[in-house]
Amino acid sequence: MSVTAAKGFTAAGIAAGIKENGNPDLALVVNNGPRRAAAGVFTSNRVKAAPVLWSEQVLASGELAAVVLNSGGANACTGPRGFQDAHATAEKAAEVLGVGAGEVAVASTGLIGLLLPMDKLLPGVEKAAAELSEHGGEKAAIAIKTTDTVHKTAVVTRDGWTVGGMAKGAGMLAPGLATMLVVLTTDADVDAPELDKALRAATRVTFDRVDSDGCMSTNDTVLLLASGASGTTPAYDDFADAVREVCDSLGRQLIGDAEGASKDIRVEVVGAASEADAVEVGRSIARNNLLKCAIHGEDPNWGRVLSAIGTTGATFEPDRLNVAINGVWVCKNGSVGEDRDLVDMRYREVTITADLAAGTESAVIWTNDLTADYVHENSAYSS
Amino acid sequence: MSVTAAKGFTAAGIAAGIKENGNPDLALVVNNGPRRAAAGVFTSNRVKAAPVLWSEQVLASGELAAVVLNSGGANACTGPRGFQDAHATAEKAAEVLGVGAGEVAVASTGLIGLLLPMDKLLPGVEKAAAELSEHGGEKAAIAIKTTDTVHKTAVVTRDGWTVGGMAKGAGMLAPGLATMLVVLTTDADVDAPELDKALRAATRVTFDRVDSDGCMSTNDTVLLLASGASGTTPAYDDFADAVREVCDSLGRQLIGDAEGASKDIRVEVVGAASEADAVEVGRSIARNNLLKCAIHGEDPNWGRVLSAIGTTGATFEPDRLNVAINGVWVCKNGSVGEDRDLVDMRYREVTITADLAAGTESAVIWTNDLTADYVHENSAYSS
Repeated sequence: MSVTAAKGFTAAGIAAGIKENGNPDLALVVNNGPRRAAAGVFTSNRVKAAPVLWSEQVLASGELAAVVLNSGGANACTGPRGFQDAHATAEKAAEVLGVGAGEVAVASTGLIGLLLPMDKLLPGVEKAAAELSEHGGEKAAIAIKTTDTVHKTAVVTRDGWTVGGMAKGAGMLAPGLATMLVVLTTDADVDAPELDKALRAATRVTFDRVDSDGCMSTNDTVLLLASGASGTTPAYDDFADAVREVCDSLGRQLIGDAEGASKDIRVEVVGAASEADAVEVGRSIARNNLLKCAIHGEDPNWGRVLSAIGTTGATFEPDRLNVAINGVWVCKNGSVGEDRDLVDMRYREVTITADLAAGTESAVIWTNDLTADYVHENSAYSS
Repeated sequence: MSVTAAKGFTAAGIAAGIKENGNPDLALVVNNGPRRAAAGVFTSNRVKAAPVLWSEQVLASGELAAVVLNSGGANACTGPRGFQDAHATAEKAAEVLGVGAGEVAVASTGLIGLLLPMDKLLPGVEKAAAELSEHGGEKAAIAIKTTDTVHKTAVVTRDGWTVGGMAKGAGMLAPGLATMLVVLTTDADVDAPELDKALRAATRVTFDRVDSDGCMSTNDTVLLLASGASGTTPAYDDFADAVREVCDSLGRQLIGDAEGASKDIRVEVVGAASEADAVEVGRSIARNNLLKCAIHGEDPNWGRVLSAIGTTGATFEPDRLNVAINGVWVCKNGSVGEDRDLVDMRYREVTITADLAAGTESAVIWTNDLTADYVHENSAYSS
């Protein structure tokens, strides 16, 4: 159902020929109103792809009529020509849909440093517009895949209104935000400032805490479009909660499909003096290559957890640190704890709990193990 | 020649039985004077191994008579008992050598979170003392190996005086300092403050700029011992230069033998507004897993270089960045540059040049590619 689960939206996903293998590579999502409120959150990478620069500008108005997304090319590091291409894509969609180009966001994903084949992309926009449907959500979700093995969608329905969405992302998954394209839609009648507030609150504790490989992309885009078609304006907290729930599900699906991963690792930092400390420590653990290799080998190597904690500036005393792996406290007071042979690591999900014994704050960061498959997939990506 | 290249030093390397496979695992280096000046630099990880805590204390006096080093166990995260073991090791060496325990540094490397087998280590110290020799440098260098495939030594001889040394380190290679054990010796007659100054100046631009896998160890130790046996006191700049040269050679050997690596990558940042900017950008590039995979696949994927630069706080404009790989400027002004097919990546050494076009400062960081062998070696390390 994805982006068409909420009333007031149509979508399409087609093969425009951007990908040489003929797979679907162009998605179009249209908000048919009655409202067209929108909000967006983008990568904090300072090297931003052309579509990010375009869409940030467009979002300033707090309104969006449509989003064009393509896989098969990131349109990043493509100079002034790349920006012109993003602009031309929006112009084409605007022309076909009878709206203004300033109401059309653009998002791209794929290899950095290649110009998009506009001779294929622009006719693709026309073709997608001709196939727009209230049932097009799944096709749109499929068309934005790159190395994703499955498409990712989530829907939450509450009392008369719905939030749904789609996501792609499998590599370059790291915070600020977690590298991906996401389009969320809702038929709740919510204005742009509230959409923005709910979206930022949700991404801060979901996509921003997904850190698969520590690499931040140039293209991260999360958009939230509201049609108001349900005629219902939910209480802010209820709405924000639904948005967070959809983001949480999509973020979890991204981790579950990360390139080459065989383990999903939930890094849970507790006993922190501040939430910022908890996040810093969680990220440091999530990015430790040696630990990620150990988890791949089902080795409860808590020494690597401590060595990762030790590189942070968080408040803690080394001889008060505790670490549990899948519930077994293998490290107590900075030293040897329970028998590491008690740790059962056969399942895909692994939980690492780091107790800083310095306060009451906590945070969860999701990451993956580091595998030979990850290396293989990413040494061959551009060839 | 290693630590016994300089006059006034003896060394030994033996198998004490700490390693279950019977390989050499204990080294002893003794300064026979006439002077015993010394300096040390240690890991900046806040979780410090017991031998680091011990040796930092001992170094406060600026004098060292001997160093005991073991492989086969890091004595890190071992609590009060671990510190007692480090102390007992120094006491044993002091007793056998007829010096004070406060003149003996201790260094350990191996798995974190295991107590050392003191019933093997202490007799090992006696055995090593019995084998001390002016030709023992190479054996000592062999005894400190863990996953190193070769032992690492370097010697620089100037006008009547010598600086030599040995190093180990193959994983957990990252800055602050670059994770390893290093003992340097010199027969130059230099006092402790000058030794300290020369050593810090050297490590700052050598070991501190080796970043193989982004993982900082709990045990990093670099010691410099001066015997004064040459009777010569060189000019400070000459001496500092020789120390830097030895550190540079050893650092380069560490990268050349990093776990699972097939490429040595020289990340050269030029045109930076400050040296700190250059180092920050160099490290960000050196730690980008996706880029390291691409280099492994001999793929000149400059987009991943730009995406790594974009995560830093350095001064630059995205549309003025230039990137060369092995001398081919594949990215110019933040966009597509020379033909990437011109890049020849068949050889082990790869140079990535990032020009920030923001100033005149520069820095070099050394790293490796990320390979399936690295994953394999580090998923099996503790088993």
